[in-house]
Amino acid sequence: MRRLAVLGSTGSIGTSTLEVVEGSPERFQVVALAARASLDRLEAQVRRHGPRLVSVESEAGARELRRRLGRTATEVVWGTAGLLQAADAGADLVVSAIVGADGLLPTMRAVTAGTDVALANKESLVMAGHLLTAEARARGTRILPVDSEHSAIFQCLAGNGTGGVRRIVLTASGGPFRTRPRSALASVTPEEALQHPNWSMGKKITIDSATLMNKGLEVIEAHWLFGLPVDRVDVIVHPQSIIHSLVEYVDGSILAQLGVPDMRIPIQYALTHPERRPTMVPRLTLEALAGLTFEAVDRAKFPCLDLAYEAARAGGSSPTVLNAANEVAVHRFLNRRIGFDEIPTLIRKALDAHPRRAVGSVEEVLEVDREVRRRLDEH
Amino acid sequence: MRRLAVLGSTGSIGTSTLEVVEGSPERFQVVALAARASLDRLEAQVRRHGPRLVSVESEAGARELRRRLGRTATEVVWGTAGLLQAADAGADLVVSAIVGADGLLPTMRAVTAGTDVALANKESLVMAGHLLTAEARARGTRILPVDSEHSAIFQCLAGNGTGGVRRIVLTASGGPFRTRPRSALASVTPEEALQHPNWSMGKKITIDSATLMNKGLEVIEAHWLFGLPVDRVDVIVHPQSIIHSLVEYVDGSILAQLGVPDMRIPIQYALTHPERRPTMVPRLTLEALAGLTFEAVDRAKFPCLDLAYEAARAGGSSPTVLNAANEVAVHRFLNRRIGFDEIPTLIRKALDAHPRRAVGSVEEVLEVDREVRRRLDEH
Repeated sequence: MRRLAVLGSTGSIGTSTLEVVEGSPERFQVVALAARASLDRLEAQVRRHGPRLVSVESEAGARELRRRLGRTATEVVWGTAGLLQAADAGADLVVSAIVGADGLLPTMRAVTAGTDVALANKESLVMAGHLLTAEARARGTRILPVDSEHSAIFQCLAGNGTGGVRRIVLTASGGPFRTRPRSALASVTPEEALQHPNWSMGKKITIDSATLMNKGLEVIEAHWLFGLPVDRVDVIVHPQSIIHSLVEYVDGSILAQLGVPDMRIPIQYALTHPERRPTMVPRLTLEALAGLTFEAVDRAKFPCLDLAYEAARAGGSSPTVLNAANEVAVHRFLNRRIGFDEIPTLIRKALDAHPRRAVGSVEEVLEVDREVRRRLDEH
Repeated sequence: MRRLAVLGSTGSIGTSTLEVVEGSPERFQVVALAARASLDRLEAQVRRHGPRLVSVESEAGARELRRRLGRTATEVVWGTAGLLQAADAGADLVVSAIVGADGLLPTMRAVTAGTDVALANKESLVMAGHLLTAEARARGTRILPVDSEHSAIFQCLAGNGTGGVRRIVLTASGGPFRTRPRSALASVTPEEALQHPNWSMGKKITIDSATLMNKGLEVIEAHWLFGLPVDRVDVIVHPQSIIHSLVEYVDGSILAQLGVPDMRIPIQYALTHPERRPTMVPRLTLEALAGLTFEAVDRAKFPCLDLAYEAARAGGSSPTVLNAANEVAVHRFLNRRIGFDEIPTLIRKALDAHPRRAVGSVEEVLEVDREVRRRLDEH
């Protein structure tokens, strides 16, 4: 029986995680849940899984949830303190599935507590990869990838190690604007950008997929997860989203992981690793595939990708600046305050306005994050 | 420095093996070579690699080679006894690359001597898989695959084990007659059948690729190498020969190995495993691939594949009957004595004429082999 804490339990990854848990109730026990404000869904999750602890964002939310739950044994907590309690609630594995910079503190808390982490919150590694991986090494904690791309790489590296690796190749669907001319990107609406061709995900990640910033963040994530220089992490467009990533070895051999695009496969693998268990996901029918293709990324059309490489090479505070500016830009785009093509412009300005500096603690990282948001708010 | 014996050194796999050796002369030392009768090529190999021992098929060939070599330190031996000496010449790894049933005895000798084997001679495992794998377990000998398909599976299983495997999927190019109607197969000439679209190989294997018997033999080989029931080894047509095989796990995840179709990659991996080293093989350019596709095998058009499954399920002497009859049939086809479509007919008759019996030793296996050839010669 593996005890789980699911942070971000009402989001896309969180609900898929709980579906996996429901598929093998004899193997998993949910000890803690944390969500922002989707009280209806969270209430149902608490009733179904009976965690010892549940955390929500606001005090009012906590009060309301407590009222709804009535006489249950579940303790209801709130805010950052509550979230950190959930991250350190005696689980064997913390599923870190909060979206954005908010995932950093609880992820670090879990690692510091010596608890293995199934990481979907790529922003933690983007912002504080050096701190998280050093802490994980010191505590003997494993950080298991949940992203389909990183799970693919993880599977392709199993039994091989990174010694013979020439490069990692992350596949990208290319997003909804892969075939649209660059000049037409200015007029893209949030509704169009939210139509992802292959994956069903939350809003923030869907927009990041459309700008390819998601792939940029994944490059930085892969760099930290697998300990390879960022310039040995490449990106290739693979419109069918069947090959979830590849590892090219120095001998010319390439290993790839394939499957239907369904997050329950990589989520379950993180939960059961090193074992594999049947899933409820439909099998991939190779004969039915129309033809797997690859193409180079149009880097002029999707400048967010190069911005991510640039920030990763600079290191220090730069990836945090990149990430904070991107979160602000996506938010503004969704609220129709800026155009789709202005997302990279805003990030570029933020990177230029915040010269790289060293960041030696999570607190310093979060200070950079706040600083960037504050300055952007002023403009 | 790894000491190698290369059996079948003048054939396709043998010469590629020596190319790999020449690429890393500081890592390998050739201690023995064995070939049938290509004396020019063998003489050059001896001069280049200076093995302690070299074996040829006939006494006359040995005499001629000795004369040509003049005053060298290399001992020249011949016949089955010579071949067995080469298999047991103090190598760390024996590359078993003789084609056909003749490869069985020296492969068994190497395994019995406790020497690791890089196995290209699939017939050994087809005929005596139960004996070879039992002996390898008893002696702690490793049998490393050289076939591109089995090397692919081996790489996809690394770090995973077979516990979570749903099935192995061997890819087949489909051969030169993939798109030709079944009715047109009767008129196929040896010249047409020898035109393989993707791989450059010896004559026997090229014809086996055209009939898909090669894939049938590989199914049996995979069954023994990886310890999976033969019905969990599937075959799929993949005309581009870029994905060299796949492993499907119970969770729906599929691992695949890709690369340019060049035998030097799997050969070198068998020679350097578990390490990977750069090869002289050109890199695969994913962006240049026209589209990777899969299709089901037309089992009515290529009955050899089902004959192999049938023989494998029956076990005992049946795979040896299958293999011997196939060798005779391919020989007759190349000599224009039978049509291309008569290859499976002849094998079917041989299987029906030789009811399955248990085979408890290599000698019994070889007795079955001789018996099948004798009976076929009578007709």
